[in-house]
Amino acid sequence: MNRWEFTAMANSIGTIFTVTTFGESHGPCVGVIIDGCPAGLELSEADVQPQLDRRRPGQSDLTTGRKEADAARILSGIENGITLGTPVTVVIDNKDRRPGDYRELKNIPRPSHADFTYRAKYGVSASSGGGRASARETAARVAAGAVAEKYLRVGHGVEIVAWVSSAGDIEAPDMSDGDFGRDTVDANAIRCPDAGVAEEMATIVKRAADEGDSVGGTVTCVCRNVPAGWGEPIFDKLEARLGAAMLSIPAVKGFEVGSGFAGTRMRGSEHNDVFVMKEGRLGTASNRSGGIQGGIANGEPVVFRAAFKPTATIKRAQQTIDYDGQQVRLEPRKGRHDPCVLPRAVPVVEAMAAIVLADMARMAVEPIG
Amino acid sequence: MNRWEFTAMANSIGTIFTVTTFGESHGPCVGVIIDGCPAGLELSEADVQPQLDRRRPGQSDLTTGRKEADAARILSGIENGITLGTPVTVVIDNKDRRPGDYRELKNIPRPSHADFTYRAKYGVSASSGGGRASARETAARVAAGAVAEKYLRVGHGVEIVAWVSSAGDIEAPDMSDGDFGRDTVDANAIRCPDAGVAEEMATIVKRAADEGDSVGGTVTCVCRNVPAGWGEPIFDKLEARLGAAMLSIPAVKGFEVGSGFAGTRMRGSEHNDVFVMKEGRLGTASNRSGGIQGGIANGEPVVFRAAFKPTATIKRAQQTIDYDGQQVRLEPRKGRHDPCVLPRAVPVVEAMAAIVLADMARMAVEPIG
Amino acid sequence: MNRWEFTAMANSIGTIFTVTTFGESHGPCVGVIIDGCPAGLELSEADVQPQLDRRRPGQSDLTTGRKEADAARILSGIENGITLGTPVTVVIDNKDRRPGDYRELKNIPRPSHADFTYRAKYGVSASSGGGRASARETAARVAAGAVAEKYLRVGHGVEIVAWVSSAGDIEAPDMSDGDFGRDTVDANAIRCPDAGVAEEMATIVKRAADEGDSVGGTVTCVCRNVPAGWGEPIFDKLEARLGAAMLSIPAVKGFEVGSGFAGTRMRGSEHNDVFVMKEGRLGTASNRSGGIQGGIANGEPVVFRAAFKPTATIKRAQQTIDYDGQQVRLEPRKGRHDPCVLPRAVPVVEAMAAIVLADMARMAVEPIG
Amino acid sequence: MNRWEFTAMANSIGTIFTVTTFGESHGPCVGVIIDGCPAGLELSEADVQPQLDRRRPGQSDLTTGRKEADAARILSGIENGITLGTPVTVVIDNKDRRPGDYRELKNIPRPSHADFTYRAKYGVSASSGGGRASARETAARVAAGAVAEKYLRVGHGVEIVAWVSSAGDIEAPDMSDGDFGRDTVDANAIRCPDAGVAEEMATIVKRAADEGDSVGGTVTCVCRNVPAGWGEPIFDKLEARLGAAMLSIPAVKGFEVGSGFAGTRMRGSEHNDVFVMKEGRLGTASNRSGGIQGGIANGEPVVFRAAFKPTATIKRAQQTIDYDGQQVRLEPRKGRHDPCVLPRAVPVVEAMAAIVLADMARMAVEPIG
Repeated sequence: MNRWEFTAMANSIGTIFTVTTFGESHGPCVGVIIDGCPAGLELSEADVQPQLDRRRPGQSDLTTGRKEADAARILSGIENGITLGTPVTVVIDNKDRRPGDYRELKNIPRPSHADFTYRAKYGVSASSGGGRASARETAARVAAGAVAEKYLRVGHGVEIVAWVSSAGDIEAPDMSDGDFGRDTVDANAIRCPDAGVAEEMATIVKRAADEGDSVGGTVTCVCRNVPAGWGEPIFDKLEARLGAAMLSIPAVKGFEVGSGFAGTRMRGSEHNDVFVMKEGRLGTASNRSGGIQGGIANGEPVVFRAAFKPTATIKRAQQTIDYDGQQVRLEPRKGRHDPCVLPRAVPVVEAMAAIVLADMARMAVEPIG
Repeated sequence: MNRWEFTAMANSIGTIFTVTTFGESHGPCVGVIIDGCPAGLELSEADVQPQLDRRRPGQSDLTTGRKEADAARILSGIENGITLGTPVTVVIDNKDRRPGDYRELKNIPRPSHADFTYRAKYGVSASSGGGRASARETAARVAAGAVAEKYLRVGHGVEIVAWVSSAGDIEAPDMSDGDFGRDTVDANAIRCPDAGVAEEMATIVKRAADEGDSVGGTVTCVCRNVPAGWGEPIFDKLEARLGAAMLSIPAVKGFEVGSGFAGTRMRGSEHNDVFVMKEGRLGTASNRSGGIQGGIANGEPVVFRAAFKPTATIKRAQQTIDYDGQQVRLEPRKGRHDPCVLPRAVPVVEAMAAIVLADMARMAVEPIG
Repeated sequence: MNRWEFTAMANSIGTIFTVTTFGESHGPCVGVIIDGCPAGLELSEADVQPQLDRRRPGQSDLTTGRKEADAARILSGIENGITLGTPVTVVIDNKDRRPGDYRELKNIPRPSHADFTYRAKYGVSASSGGGRASARETAARVAAGAVAEKYLRVGHGVEIVAWVSSAGDIEAPDMSDGDFGRDTVDANAIRCPDAGVAEEMATIVKRAADEGDSVGGTVTCVCRNVPAGWGEPIFDKLEARLGAAMLSIPAVKGFEVGSGFAGTRMRGSEHNDVFVMKEGRLGTASNRSGGIQGGIANGEPVVFRAAFKPTATIKRAQQTIDYDGQQVRLEPRKGRHDPCVLPRAVPVVEAMAAIVLADMARMAVEPIG
Repeated sequence: MNRWEFTAMANSIGTIFTVTTFGESHGPCVGVIIDGCPAGLELSEADVQPQLDRRRPGQSDLTTGRKEADAARILSGIENGITLGTPVTVVIDNKDRRPGDYRELKNIPRPSHADFTYRAKYGVSASSGGGRASARETAARVAAGAVAEKYLRVGHGVEIVAWVSSAGDIEAPDMSDGDFGRDTVDANAIRCPDAGVAEEMATIVKRAADEGDSVGGTVTCVCRNVPAGWGEPIFDKLEARLGAAMLSIPAVKGFEVGSGFAGTRMRGSEHNDVFVMKEGRLGTASNRSGGIQGGIANGEPVVFRAAFKPTATIKRAQQTIDYDGQQVRLEPRKGRHDPCVLPRAVPVVEAMAAIVLADMARMAVEPIG
């Protein structure tokens, strides 16, 4: 194996509203710095905690049993409950660290995990639980997303709602033009706003869990009230930024906006969104564009979908090889894991969407002076 | 319409190997600066021209009739056929400019084009042909991609091949583990390496063209010999960078890597890529990961797919409204257009993949001193 | 000598209003892309040419005899005389190329030039005239600066004036609180607004020229009407950005803002700028801060000074060694050179100040939506 | 006063080796994230503490009495004493917070402080002690600098030493070609390696302190063993990056490299550094270039000097106005302050130099693959 010592990582996202995460899954904490957050915004831990609670493990029997309170502490950027325009730092302590769980894996790269590639790239690797590649890192993103959302909501009335739109081969109907909120999404453990479909989804997740296996699926997200004009062509098109943000989430293998892959099977005459008047503004009769044309928001809801592969960690033996090339039977993990990441992925998708939109808001500006 | 005067664009991509495009579709030229290109590389216009020729309009009756020689001129960065490590500037003159073609559209935003959003964002807009939102801008990307490819090939043996994997509802079989080259792809006008499927595709494209309509489809791309270790977690994961690059191409509405959306319907036990020895290195038995784990290349071929919507420009009347909100019947365009962008999109996809990989190569490094 | 092949350069400056220069001194042209320039600004070559003319060689017998018309051509970003918010590209052709002049220098690094370091870094080097390290590269900066200035003047009423404040040991009195313009500065060839001092300066420059030697000096610059609030702490403080911009100009070895080095010899009680009312706004009685406090403009004129070393190219023999370590007598150059770069440096200093301020303007913003 | 709400700050420096500081002077802590630090480096708090101790207040009667243990805690990026290539986060708690000290200043902008400009820019401001504009923020820089230095020393043998070269009008002789270390510098409280001059400096600082006043001065820094080839023209020249880094330190008003301002009074024939052989490599007989030619290190020691204004906080009454424009007599501060920041500025200068050089090291690279 070719060792590339002396190499490093890219832990920041954004141009003006920038987010940098830090912390290993089994180190003392994970955390995040939000730079470029406007001054004068009311902000406290209470704005951050609800989304962290939605991402937290152990919410239902559909997800991992790791117990984490995931309490946010804000270390900087705020005085008297108001942002100062300085970096906002949020830290979430790791309470339930069990590095011992991973000891046996020292010499075996887990299939479809990042163990092998991190070792190939960095020469060293965190001894346990994936280090930075762990899903735990997304807690920091969720904290940052909550700050971004607060700014978007107060400053621009933007509203972001995501839900599980498919699990395995169970697909929910298209609900992207609905006006429901997160309470509707949270009405069931799987986080699908269609109650009947949710039940079917829960059934297949439980069956997979019983069999020590895992399922994949998709999360759909709609961002309402995004002002026409956000998005920066050529290379920072809104869909490009959203796509990169989603594809940076562990386990995401695909992204589509508006009509997406299904749209490739349509004719242009069917697919085009013709213009109509909507409450005094130019709108479109259909929304196959997903609220974006030429990389710039057009005032319609921004709609996209992310594909999550089935969790790589399973409770079944796998025949693979170790770093020395020896055949090994990798026994079922004792560590905690999710048979299905989808319900907990919902707030992560919302967070990444908010982080992108906050940055686009900060770039679509008018100077003062 | 809310006018945001005094706003601007993001025309650069990359961190170390950076590419900046410029030029309007009906201005004097389009062009590109490649910064961060290594010194000491043999380079001339002859390296750039072949891919420009593959992107050029008017290659077959499946594509637009706009006539452009698209001859590349290198203005800087080279002396005696060798790169100096300084910015390489490539310019492609616009010969066949017909701004008059677009005069009637001054007050009518074309459905599913960027006319409306550019005007919403910038207050002014190029009078014709989409300005920067035109597909013509991709000529500059192809020029930059050719430079990136030369570096990748000479420096690292990387080979990039893309092809049309579906057109409308005609799908080619999975050929991502093949070892064919661009000559195989170019054996037919539609650029699908399966000759039988290519014929079916050509048929539906011609039928759509005859009916003044357009079709969409997908382009699949494989990057061979990408060294294990390229890709920068957390936010510059290889799939995130590739996804953003593809989604920045006009008409792209979706991106997937490896198993992608189809993978969401698999169980973890089926989906995981177990490790096997391959010619002395750790490889994987299957490649559902698409050559990337945890955002870092694992040494297997990098495989991804981009979804192109059907061309928005059609030769059929459309019922829409103008900027004043008045109902108008938008008559078939006299301007040139493609019934299907897919064959010409192939070199654009290859170019953007090369641009991303060249940057990843430049970031995955060992210091000297 | 350790050759670092495969290394490249950083040719861009700015975060939102970004400027990228390209082109070698003896290649076909030098040029610049200005990205992030607001849409809707009236702009033509006529805005750029006057500063290029002030930088042009051959204006007087105090400067180099190289003959360049230095005519700006705008290749993109403008339609009907109005910026589109897209990248503005300006190209200046190199007419008077004489690569032959440099042939004898192939194996001798010129003392206090960049020949040696470029070769150490890049492995190859432009065969003549310094390539990118040549002062010719500053023509591209001046073009970009003229665009920045137009935006600053139209958008914010900012006015920038620089002049030669010392040449050798001839120092002009402090004129930083004056309200004179460029016409006053241009009243003499040395570009010092104090006519008597200007004459003394011209005398020593001519004497040095006669002796085949060169002189250094300083350029002072004042930026009037910079709004309080521009500048981005912590690391993009206005003085840090201005300092970096000045120190990126060839031959600059020092930078100071406000009281600068002289201020280090004062007591705090003398140095502090107490506040007073000025036309309804808080101003300061003195301006030792140079218009900046804590990295942010305070509404007073921004005043700084750049130190230029004596030109390294001289018409006298120098005893040095070649790349093989052999003693050589480097005979007087036949190529063209300036005995004193100061008069031509004045528009370069103004340009770099404008480029920095335009970026600061674009970052000190209020979002709209 | 024009209030610019919704504006934010730039708290990061660097392209690959990036440093982001956070925390207010009277909040819970100050801290820093170092991203881009190579994997595989031995690192612990013990590497960071010595420089923090040198920056710490209360070291002698020449500096402020604020009592801070300034103990570094590393929160991420390290496992078993080895860096993982992930972000290294260091936090320093604020123990001695006295917000009450600043209550009376709520409505009075302190002369030559950042109170006025921060309020002008951000609309809100930290209620006490300057918030982010406080010198306390430099503790975070020193922590990052210590990490950078460890990398530079282990990876490249680079050695950085700074000292007080002038205080008020007492100037030390030029010692930039010496080979002394920090122990020599620390032999006296003022940190001037010339014992006699140090005594004179201490005398004038004490006299100023007795009179409730403050003095300024300069810090000179030498960086030894910087490999030829570091530094990135055009805009990231080594001197430009070093200059920006120094000018971002509170109270710095000037920067010069090599011969600096004094060099402007020399002739080219005196100033040029001719080449000579030095231990088998091309070196220069003199070092007026300060180790940099054309923005790139030439292998000689990199030498620069930073000018610090006299501390703005003094224990004397000042006649000024408040935010309402009313005349006020600002009584001597009760808060802690330094009559002379120079001795404590020495490790800050070293830290910023290390941060710049580490980034230059990471950019001057050779790809592997």
